Amino acid sequence: MGQLIGRWIRGATLAPLALLTAGMAFAQEDDVAARLAALEEAVSGSASAYVDNSYLFLIGGIIVMFMAAGFCMLEAGLVRSKNAAMQTTKNVTLFSVAGLMFWLVGYNMAYPAETALMGLLGTTPGPWSGGDLSLESEDGYAPASDWFFQMVFVATAASIVSGTVAERVKLWPFLIFTAVLTAFIYPIVASWEWGGGYLDSAWGFSDFAGSTLVHSTGGWAALTGAIIIGARKGKYFGKSVNPMPGSNIPLAALGTFILWFGWFGFNGASQLAAGTAADINAVAQIFANTNMAAVGGVLAAMVTTAIIYKGKIDATMIFNGAIGGLVSITAEPLAPSMGMSVLIGAVGGVLVVLSVPLLDKFKIDDVVGAIPAHLVCGIWGTMIVPLSYTGAITPNEAGDPSYLGQLIGVLLTGVFVVIASSIIWFALKFTIGVRPSEEDEEMGLDRAEIGLEAYPEFSNR
Amino acid sequence: MGQLIGRWIRGATLAPLALLTAGMAFAQEDDVAARLAALEEAVSGSASAYVDNSYLFLIGGIIVMFMAAGFCMLEAGLVRSKNAAMQTTKNVTLFSVAGLMFWLVGYNMAYPAETALMGLLGTTPGPWSGGDLSLESEDGYAPASDWFFQMVFVATAASIVSGTVAERVKLWPFLIFTAVLTAFIYPIVASWEWGGGYLDSAWGFSDFAGSTLVHSTGGWAALTGAIIIGARKGKYFGKSVNPMPGSNIPLAALGTFILWFGWFGFNGASQLAAGTAADINAVAQIFANTNMAAVGGVLAAMVTTAIIYKGKIDATMIFNGAIGGLVSITAEPLAPSMGMSVLIGAVGGVLVVLSVPLLDKFKIDDVVGAIPAHLVCGIWGTMIVPLSYTGAITPNEAGDPSYLGQLIGVLLTGVFVVIASSIIWFALKFTIGVRPSEEDEEMGLDRAEIGLEAYPEFSNR
Amino acid sequence: MGQLIGRWIRGATLAPLALLTAGMAFAQEDDVAARLAALEEAVSGSASAYVDNSYLFLIGGIIVMFMAAGFCMLEAGLVRSKNAAMQTTKNVTLFSVAGLMFWLVGYNMAYPAETALMGLLGTTPGPWSGGDLSLESEDGYAPASDWFFQMVFVATAASIVSGTVAERVKLWPFLIFTAVLTAFIYPIVASWEWGGGYLDSAWGFSDFAGSTLVHSTGGWAALTGAIIIGARKGKYFGKSVNPMPGSNIPLAALGTFILWFGWFGFNGASQLAAGTAADINAVAQIFANTNMAAVGGVLAAMVTTAIIYKGKIDATMIFNGAIGGLVSITAEPLAPSMGMSVLIGAVGGVLVVLSVPLLDKFKIDDVVGAIPAHLVCGIWGTMIVPLSYTGAITPNEAGDPSYLGQLIGVLLTGVFVVIASSIIWFALKFTIGVRPSEEDEEMGLDRAEIGLEAYPEFSNR
Repeated sequence: MGQLIGRWIRGATLAPLALLTAGMAFAQEDDVAARLAALEEAVSGSASAYVDNSYLFLIGGIIVMFMAAGFCMLEAGLVRSKNAAMQTTKNVTLFSVAGLMFWLVGYNMAYPAETALMGLLGTTPGPWSGGDLSLESEDGYAPASDWFFQMVFVATAASIVSGTVAERVKLWPFLIFTAVLTAFIYPIVASWEWGGGYLDSAWGFSDFAGSTLVHSTGGWAALTGAIIIGARKGKYFGKSVNPMPGSNIPLAALGTFILWFGWFGFNGASQLAAGTAADINAVAQIFANTNMAAVGGVLAAMVTTAIIYKGKIDATMIFNGAIGGLVSITAEPLAPSMGMSVLIGAVGGVLVVLSVPLLDKFKIDDVVGAIPAHLVCGIWGTMIVPLSYTGAITPNEAGDPSYLGQLIGVLLTGVFVVIASSIIWFALKFTIGVRPSEEDEEMGLDRAEIGLEAYPEFSNR
Repeated sequence: MGQLIGRWIRGATLAPLALLTAGMAFAQEDDVAARLAALEEAVSGSASAYVDNSYLFLIGGIIVMFMAAGFCMLEAGLVRSKNAAMQTTKNVTLFSVAGLMFWLVGYNMAYPAETALMGLLGTTPGPWSGGDLSLESEDGYAPASDWFFQMVFVATAASIVSGTVAERVKLWPFLIFTAVLTAFIYPIVASWEWGGGYLDSAWGFSDFAGSTLVHSTGGWAALTGAIIIGARKGKYFGKSVNPMPGSNIPLAALGTFILWFGWFGFNGASQLAAGTAADINAVAQIFANTNMAAVGGVLAAMVTTAIIYKGKIDATMIFNGAIGGLVSITAEPLAPSMGMSVLIGAVGGVLVVLSVPLLDKFKIDDVVGAIPAHLVCGIWGTMIVPLSYTGAITPNEAGDPSYLGQLIGVLLTGVFVVIASSIIWFALKFTIGVRPSEEDEEMGLDRAEIGLEAYPEFSNR
Repeated sequence: MGQLIGRWIRGATLAPLALLTAGMAFAQEDDVAARLAALEEAVSGSASAYVDNSYLFLIGGIIVMFMAAGFCMLEAGLVRSKNAAMQTTKNVTLFSVAGLMFWLVGYNMAYPAETALMGLLGTTPGPWSGGDLSLESEDGYAPASDWFFQMVFVATAASIVSGTVAERVKLWPFLIFTAVLTAFIYPIVASWEWGGGYLDSAWGFSDFAGSTLVHSTGGWAALTGAIIIGARKGKYFGKSVNPMPGSNIPLAALGTFILWFGWFGFNGASQLAAGTAADINAVAQIFANTNMAAVGGVLAAMVTTAIIYKGKIDATMIFNGAIGGLVSITAEPLAPSMGMSVLIGAVGGVLVVLSVPLLDKFKIDDVVGAIPAHLVCGIWGTMIVPLSYTGAITPNEAGDPSYLGQLIGVLLTGVFVVIASSIIWFALKFTIGVRPSEEDEEMGLDRAEIGLEAYPEFSNR
């Protein structure tokens, strides 16, 4: 009965029209009461700001959901073809596991009704359930619109891990790690700040859309995984690094553009409200600043690689430069000026280019460059917040964010995520095992684990 | 003159601001009339709910339009490379034919002013034309926003057929079938329920966003086509099935994500209104439930294939599991709880995995697995509606949906679409012919029909 | 502090709810003043039309931003694999250069506070900076929402050039050209009409969403580049044309769909307002008309190629037919009827098919067919505006658009862009050089300039 057009419509009433008619009919002074009542009904029924706020979450949410496709394309493009089908399978299944666990446990861990340990741990886990659909929620937006928006953030954190540890992790242990990450690790970190917990109340820590809470969390988990799992077979010989070029650069470019596109939802909808002029002005400015940071990241990565590689520029560095710029502005996409946004993003782009060889030096094999883009730039973006932050925009009872408070947040997140992730990765390693056999890794995970090839007709291998 | 910024703006007036000023200037009691008039003008001019409703159709509509790209990528990825350019050409042209026919005939068949045969046949076909753009439509939304939203649904039904009968249908007969499907077959089915026709008035049939009306209709037409046209050359030898693996799995994954993304518009905007708190609450809950059903479909398909294939999981089954889960929730994405949404989707995912070998047993060659995902899950989703349906949300004069009424709807749709499709497929077969010559099929339709190759530099063939 | 859910919300206030309560509490006659005040506060605070307008720019803007991905995929698919990674790199970097330059110079050139030379040249360049975020802008929408929307238009113009001159231009000179195009050339042209300059005030020139201002500007710059740079090595031998087929047709199809998708934002949001019934009606009608024009372009290109090539239809012609149809309707997507929109698009589709061999005759090497689709159809779309234009919709002090006025606009744009582009291309040619060495072109720009290959494991070359 969804679309019975022209006969009746589910809920919309044309109150304004009705009102206008009423107003015309009773244009006498003693009808003031009637006109007032009609106006009040029209205004209270229109729910304008409530709808505008909910739209922000819903539209922002689907755009961020689409980032899952962006990660999928980026990663499918940057792995070798023998693992590309497996990588896309991981991306589809991780998004599913993340959604399930965040419903079952995560949401109420991240936004707990009660906390213990000075706001470090929510004590009210359990499945999320929406409220009464017939009423305006007191929060000022549709309850499920917020759940949906928060859920797609969780999936982002999980997608980061998937790229780093590609090509040498079996599917099931990877999904178990994802389940724990999205049910507990990420939600606990998010609760410290967005759930009003320890970092928020004690340190005035500020992370607008998640440079630390989402991107660094994913990045630390990825780093821990890369170290514990080890590098791909053949990646490092003594001091030399064996390049394993991505099999499909156009898909990686597509993934980059999809992520860039999705980031407008990621940062813009993190304003959390759009029903007033001030709020929608802020959302718009966030869009502009977010774009400028990506611009800075791309151009800085381009120039840096041109300098380092004597004129040649590295396409994958440029793609990661865009992502690095975007991550860098995510901790505070509203307060900086356009020019400062370019600079914040540009530093991120340079950090990406400099971090990649550093990881290789430590024989940390990050297949898609997620650690530089998400972890390093996540830290950078978080640490630079106090420079541009203006208290007027986001008041906090614990005071404005300070460099110390930001550092505390970065470190606490790092320590917690590394310890928690290590426990899970080691537990998996010593039970069901994390890596495929050497033969399977050599053959490629597509044939070993999912029984088909990404490009059965093309590969020259 | 579209963008003369800073000098004048087309239609927006800042009524609220003007009002505020007016209100401040005349703050005396005998100015009540003036203040009331100003308020009434502001409220009636803001058209808040009208705009919110129209936005739902427009945003939902472009997201669903993008599903055409999703089907295109899914199908391009799952055909062999020698037919991949042809498949994408079909997807672009079918979307065009669908749009043209739905404008010329289909819309007014689906939403007829008058019907005959107990509401089984609209009797007022003819081109759709918008109303007076300067007025608020009495329907509560911009007329063209509804046309646009309905049009992209038609294209979805046509896209389903394209995938099943891929690799062995010539372009022109396929497009002729598409024209009839989108001008008559789909619109007639849609009229029975969304047009207020027979199924709605006589049986209280309920199909919120089209598990039966869109997906089963496409699925029945695809099934009929697959049987009449026959399997691809070499697909079946006696009792053995020759696997013909898809040529580009990452594209198929991309298509899956695009469809998932588009489904939020497909189901969410089928609420048809967003201007009140109750409506936007419902839209948001539909988003959440739709996602959970996809999650259920993916995870159930994963586990089922792992059990059947002893640990290996099949990537294409997982992609179709997502689609199957989404189709399953489409008949009623609002009433179920989050947990029930997971289960409804999970059953869909299992059905997909079990249906694929069944089709092979009957030598029905469904290239992309569209029949399991859209037809089988469409039936499942429709039949389970009464379990969760709560009368309060969508009242209907013929009473709440019943299992019998749902079954009648499923069967009537199946019988009609199979008969109508058979007539068209046979008519094409015995006139201009449907299949390419054996040589052309062997060579691939890319070279035979469109004179270029999808991947001229790669293929090892 | 971005997402502190459940404790406080940044800006949204639930004024309507508060109001309702107030209204119930004081339902006596002498409380009229209080009720009026509450109503006024609610209405003025809701900012409904302001938010609706800003949403139009923001949602339209991100959709148009995503067109950058569409151009990227279209171009990556239509170049040979040895240049595909380079082409995607160009697309990512040109989008960045465009954003930077439009912020630094372009916006205030396009929408100048003051002009000289009869409105031909803005005299107030300089970086754009947003206004006071806490206030309603007098323009009726969030300042940055407009900047963002205009910026993505600039990038579109630059993307057009990139496709035409693909495979034989070095990265740095290309980006320098892009910088000048997006800082000066495009903004100056845009200022003549959308900035209220010469074409608008003297000729009543009308170009709703940019058939001339965006698409022809890009097309002229591309044509100039193609002529000055010359054809790809080996493309033309005497009178024979060596076809160089695109390496990845499915990606080109994806690009086409993404562009089609983005065009709803491109044309729809060029209505510039959505806060009233009349405005949202117009946006919706633009969606419908835009789709019909694409439909016409596809079907006309299909039929035309079938006639010319004796039954075979050319996939790339069909993709460019869609784009040609879309460009054709862009100059006036609101006034035409649905049927006229089909025809306008269909003529565009025919023009595309006829223009491609014409360019080859003159040995103008347009790799992706951008000149037929954007330049030829841009001229066609602009010239046909007076046929459907109805003065009531977009009043202009210089009178309704005339065929002469449109012609003046087309010619002035062509002359200016050709001269300006020639100067830049020649300056680059005689200084740093534009073309790679013959060896580099032969090897492919992927290896020559960016040090990796698009598909290192596939290519048979």
